Amino acid sequence: MLFLSSKDIDELIDCKDVLKSIEKSYCIHYNNKYLMPDRMHVHSDDTTLLLMPCFVESCFGTKLVTVNKENANIGVPVINGVMVLNDNKTGEPLAVLNAASLTGYRTGAVGGVGIKYTTPDNVESVGLVGAGVQGFYQLLYACTVRNIKRINIYDFNKEVLVDFKNRLLKKLPDVDIHISDSVEEMLSLSEVVICTTSSTKAVLPNDEDLLKAKHFIGIGSYKPNMREFPDSLYPLLKNVYVDTPFASSESGDLSQPLAQKLINESQILNIDKFVNDKEDIVEETSLFKSVGMALFDVVVADYLYNNAVKLGKGTEVEL
Amino acid sequence: MLFLSSKDIDELIDCKDVLKSIEKSYCIHYNNKYLMPDRMHVHSDDTTLLLMPCFVESCFGTKLVTVNKENANIGVPVINGVMVLNDNKTGEPLAVLNAASLTGYRTGAVGGVGIKYTTPDNVESVGLVGAGVQGFYQLLYACTVRNIKRINIYDFNKEVLVDFKNRLLKKLPDVDIHISDSVEEMLSLSEVVICTTSSTKAVLPNDEDLLKAKHFIGIGSYKPNMREFPDSLYPLLKNVYVDTPFASSESGDLSQPLAQKLINESQILNIDKFVNDKEDIVEETSLFKSVGMALFDVVVADYLYNNAVKLGKGTEVEL
Repeated sequence: MLFLSSKDIDELIDCKDVLKSIEKSYCIHYNNKYLMPDRMHVHSDDTTLLLMPCFVESCFGTKLVTVNKENANIGVPVINGVMVLNDNKTGEPLAVLNAASLTGYRTGAVGGVGIKYTTPDNVESVGLVGAGVQGFYQLLYACTVRNIKRINIYDFNKEVLVDFKNRLLKKLPDVDIHISDSVEEMLSLSEVVICTTSSTKAVLPNDEDLLKAKHFIGIGSYKPNMREFPDSLYPLLKNVYVDTPFASSESGDLSQPLAQKLINESQILNIDKFVNDKEDIVEETSLFKSVGMALFDVVVADYLYNNAVKLGKGTEVEL
Repeated sequence: MLFLSSKDIDELIDCKDVLKSIEKSYCIHYNNKYLMPDRMHVHSDDTTLLLMPCFVESCFGTKLVTVNKENANIGVPVINGVMVLNDNKTGEPLAVLNAASLTGYRTGAVGGVGIKYTTPDNVESVGLVGAGVQGFYQLLYACTVRNIKRINIYDFNKEVLVDFKNRLLKKLPDVDIHISDSVEEMLSLSEVVICTTSSTKAVLPNDEDLLKAKHFIGIGSYKPNMREFPDSLYPLLKNVYVDTPFASSESGDLSQPLAQKLINESQILNIDKFVNDKEDIVEETSLFKSVGMALFDVVVADYLYNNAVKLGKGTEVEL
């Protein structure tokens, strides 16, 4: 069995291949070539354990990931876990991977594919609210799918922004990275806006003029009580594009505007068809909302495993 | 993170400590100091994936185990998987263990604790139907909890018995191990009878005279269509003792006689109370039926992990 640490994954990964894996996942999803039971959540004190199994033709796997916000207070990552990849014929475990790292890269790539399909080819500026781990990955992928010249970063905790900018500069030395003083400034200077917070209320101003003709990528809200986008965004949208069928019930960015009748169910479209058909989505103002699914994890883990075997990376352990 | 292979577990394990862990699990169960969602089953072609999470006070963990009977035809173990053990405060993975080995030892110990509480102290003979992996573990533990002088083994596939006997002799050199020509002979020569088959019909003769005054341990049937014990056993029983509340619905050895009205729900008692109160069960004819639960896995994995840390065993890997 192969063990792939966070360091192994960093060394192995090619952002372009992860983007391809996410596009492949959408094609598998659209063509119904998978078996993915509803993910199981277990809550105990401050910790939530998510169990995310998925079977595809080549393999199957389960992501076991924990979320504990209190960890941030003691210097421990909020997200922890492992992904187990199995042989589809015998069930034997093929690999155990660092699930936090896998989640980071694959969620970044889900945002990247969202940008690829819902924004014009020539966008050059991207803004971010939420300068955390996932914000970092989102910007890496945004710069992989588009020729981004300027990044505008904002966080309600301004103390984190200088360090975030410095780390980002190491990965993106040719991009002009700007710390915004206000969320309004970030929004006004950005064509694409990515939200990666754990907020329970809108993080963007409820101002139609500022929101209009922007392209939004929603990553943070994965529970019905979590929300990143303001009410006045929704009337500007023709449709909302999602990564999974259960996004409308799981994310407050969809369930709340649905309940408020700001949008209706028929406006919520799965992006899988557009990826499968290689069809760009052209809208003046757009929103792509991701909540993630185990199918992404298993397809990306399969890619990482096969790449590691090919390159002789990772630690082989006898099970 | 610590990785514990099958070989590490073989080297680390002390059967008496595993028995103690199973007794501890029953006390935790009886005192309701656990969180154990229903285990999830995913079926795809010949493979069933079971996801078994459980939280206790000291830690939590998830067993991911696959069952594929077709593996036997290609020389691959039927049961495969890993157990992930996590820190209860932060959720960080502490260890990944070989789940097939863990399942083998812990299920053996569940049978052993069943024997300890439902059979007289002075039994000296034990019979087995089903000379497979689990049959082996069951006999090891039977000989740990009782001073067994004679083992009578039987399998419908007689070809496996000589090899099984030879392997058993290495672990139990002082026990008289006898290959029975018939299941009747095995039954008549044994005070305790353990069944570890995947049969869908009774493997013991439907003969009250042969069944009377014996002590049965049922391990094999874990689905409603699986059955090891014949109809005429049930009227001989005052009660049936089980390891888990869901045994009556999961095992055909209980669900079928319940439907046939050979026994009623009030006769099905959880053994946890007896273990908690250290109270022996004294019955002329007895049946202990196990289907297993994640609580056993997490408590045994916790013991193995702590023992490995203490003894410096296993492979430390950076996650």
